[in-house]
Amino acid sequence: MNDTKERLIRTGEEMFRRQGYAGSGLKQLVAEAQAPWGSLYHFFPQGKAQLGEEVLAYAAQLYAAGWDRIFAAFPDPVEAVRRAFRAEVKTLETSGFAHGCPIASVTLDIASTVEGLRLSCAAAFQTWIEAIARGLLKGGVPEQAAPDLAVFILSSLEGAIVLSRAARSTRALKQTGAFVELAVAAALER
Amino acid sequence: MNDTKERLIRTGEEMFRRQGYAGSGLKQLVAEAQAPWGSLYHFFPQGKAQLGEEVLAYAAQLYAAGWDRIFAAFPDPVEAVRRAFRAEVKTLETSGFAHGCPIASVTLDIASTVEGLRLSCAAAFQTWIEAIARGLLKGGVPEQAAPDLAVFILSSLEGAIVLSRAARSTRALKQTGAFVELAVAAALER
Repeated sequence: MNDTKERLIRTGEEMFRRQGYAGSGLKQLVAEAQAPWGSLYHFFPQGKAQLGEEVLAYAAQLYAAGWDRIFAAFPDPVEAVRRAFRAEVKTLETSGFAHGCPIASVTLDIASTVEGLRLSCAAAFQTWIEAIARGLLKGGVPEQAAPDLAVFILSSLEGAIVLSRAARSTRALKQTGAFVELAVAAALER
Repeated sequence: MNDTKERLIRTGEEMFRRQGYAGSGLKQLVAEAQAPWGSLYHFFPQGKAQLGEEVLAYAAQLYAAGWDRIFAAFPDPVEAVRRAFRAEVKTLETSGFAHGCPIASVTLDIASTVEGLRLSCAAAFQTWIEAIARGLLKGGVPEQAAPDLAVFILSSLEGAIVLSRAARSTRALKQTGAFVELAVAAALER
């Protein structure tokens, strides 16, 4: 991928995490990406929504790979989930609570107004759910339970990130993660 | 409260639920509220952030009362949580997936950029956590478990709303709710 295009996408992803879709102005994006203004419409001739879709596709793959890595390193699903929640704690702490989830932020801005982006958000969540379900299955969660459990894990994590960002405290992530671990252990019949 | 002011706040709340804070333009707000443009700066002389804070305070009380009503009608915490998730399913279905959570939407837009609103979001979540914890406690959840369990319930519900709005399907709410019910039953040692 062209360097400038990649920089625009990476910067867009950072901005969506921090301030959502509607609040991410293109002037700020171009300035933060240190890209010429014309490059935006060169690479994304259909404008902001096209950039948005490419950012969401990039984020979908990036974090799906993260889930795959966690389950590869920690095949025990309880440990994998513990590490996933801990990783979010660290991400929020080291970013001053700025690095939330770009898909959640964009969803709440555009789910009812920009159908193309809504579909990209749905696809991203689905990719993550499948990555989590794969990891759970490999770790011994019964096949009929893994997809539902994966949705529950992702929902709980996403909501806990919202509460933690509002409070500027990782407490909600830690409190929520403890119950999610118990749920995973129960699914493994421990 | 003055009728026009109340209409601006109620309309603001609906808009935040649907399209977040950054995406809620004041011109659209005034048009939807059928209020004169000047009324906005008459009632909210400090502008959009002031309106936002009043909308968030209104939403905080509105949904806290909702939690109180659910626990009053269904003192069994498992049943109360089931009803809360079901109520969200119905809200999303009847609104065409437009009526999300105004606090979550605003949090993801402004947590890193508008400190006054971030504090209002934190206060709203805290009010709800306390309402849920009160209900759990009355329903027999041990005192040391109720606050953490309340945070977990709210996190899971908030995240499931995000996933459901992205997918335009209430499936995530139903899948997540089932696991949350199990967690509440476990806390009751059932």
